[in-house]
Amino acid sequence: MHAHEMIGTHPHVKGKTNDALIRCIEECFDCAQTCTSCADACLGEPMVAQLIQCIRLNMDCADICMATGAIATRRTGSNEEVIRQMLHACMTACRICGEECGRHAGMHEHCRICADACRRCEQACRQAMDSIGARH
Amino acid sequence: MHAHEMIGTHPHVKGKTNDALIRCIEECFDCAQTCTSCADACLGEPMVAQLIQCIRLNMDCADICMATGAIATRRTGSNEEVIRQMLHACMTACRICGEECGRHAGMHEHCRICADACRRCEQACRQAMDSIGARH
Amino acid sequence: MHAHEMIGTHPHVKGKTNDALIRCIEECFDCAQTCTSCADACLGEPMVAQLIQCIRLNMDCADICMATGAIATRRTGSNEEVIRQMLHACMTACRICGEECGRHAGMHEHCRICADACRRCEQACRQAMDSIGARH
Amino acid sequence: MHAHEMIGTHPHVKGKTNDALIRCIEECFDCAQTCTSCADACLGEPMVAQLIQCIRLNMDCADICMATGAIATRRTGSNEEVIRQMLHACMTACRICGEECGRHAGMHEHCRICADACRRCEQACRQAMDSIGARH
Repeated sequence: MHAHEMIGTHPHVKGKTNDALIRCIEECFDCAQTCTSCADACLGEPMVAQLIQCIRLNMDCADICMATGAIATRRTGSNEEVIRQMLHACMTACRICGEECGRHAGMHEHCRICADACRRCEQACRQAMDSIGARH
Repeated sequence: MHAHEMIGTHPHVKGKTNDALIRCIEECFDCAQTCTSCADACLGEPMVAQLIQCIRLNMDCADICMATGAIATRRTGSNEEVIRQMLHACMTACRICGEECGRHAGMHEHCRICADACRRCEQACRQAMDSIGARH
Repeated sequence: MHAHEMIGTHPHVKGKTNDALIRCIEECFDCAQTCTSCADACLGEPMVAQLIQCIRLNMDCADICMATGAIATRRTGSNEEVIRQMLHACMTACRICGEECGRHAGMHEHCRICADACRRCEQACRQAMDSIGARH
Repeated sequence: MHAHEMIGTHPHVKGKTNDALIRCIEECFDCAQTCTSCADACLGEPMVAQLIQCIRLNMDCADICMATGAIATRRTGSNEEVIRQMLHACMTACRICGEECGRHAGMHEHCRICADACRRCEQACRQAMDSIGARH
């Protein structure tokens, strides 16, 4: 992704990037794609009826990751309280989705990969949140 | 919108709709469109340079309203903690965006209408959050 | 929705609204919510395994309606070729999704309502496309 | 991104991935983030009034890339005509946005990077479209 390169050239950032936030943006876009893909792969499984909670959590998580990734991308003006709350909601969505996917990780390889992407995104959101306290 | 009609026919809902949540869904979709439109109208103003914070908040608010509206729409399985946190983030985004738009309401009619839509959506999110405590 | 009121106050529009395009925006947001809701209701049906094509088309249609509604909302600058192609894609997505939902309309009330919303949105996209030829 | 890994584990794909389509998904998510970032960076420039067409095209392109990336991700059931039309719309949006960004590439580094991301995404959409003719 071009997130680091792009944000580094923002007129208000001028190279002083918050790298934890940038990593979080990248994980959010990745997790959104992964969750969209996992919802779709679950839907294609013969045992789909047992995966409906997983599909639902995947879709919610994808929507939140997408919105969080877009909001965290913006550096013009400021909206710190909203970013914080979205990072918090995104952490929660990733944790819950990752736990559910983790339950089918032994049976469905897509759930194993998705659980991993969710955990990475959850952790990146936490680190981004910590980084906002220090600088922003 | 068809939100009430649609959710009323969901196999797990069977007519027992949470009307506060449905009103919230409708306000979220409305506010997403209104904020997208206000960001665009601000961008077209000759004094755009003084409206950049407003545009930024509009875009963040639109993204969050969109995600919240989609997530609140889903009734299969459950994801209550995530819905709560998104309603909370959406309330905050609407409050902050509505306050900023309110500052230009006298000069830009689109900001006046948008401030109103944000306030309605903020209130609908609050009522939806209260309603989830009681039933869900 | 506030689409008509908002676009009417855009500094470049000044009340000279394209009403076919505005109706199309409203139908796009409505259809996005309805398709999101239908995908979710189908997912909750005991016979979910027979509804996977319907769910998939619902999700694709919701994504396209959302993007088309946002793009058609913008009046600053111009992007006519892109709007045209998105209206075209949206018409196609609505037609195909509406046909699939129509097949289960007798059995699932949510599919009947969704088929209707898709048809209205398809028609509104067509009329918006015709209107762009004449003025824009 | 996990797109290749995820789609390779889809129950209907079973490792027989369409690599041109997967590359297209990755470019779409990347281009969506890059265009969101470029709109924001342009909004932060002192000469924002001269960049409003660029910002508008960036936002349209981001919306279409996001929708195209999600739709192209889905492998359950089929929706070939819609995928084709979205790839076509996405190519057009990327071409037009890339051309506009290219005009400011000498002055704004973020526009130079964004023009490059748009061109890559346009090309990936074209190759994905060609690949769908041959197999899908």
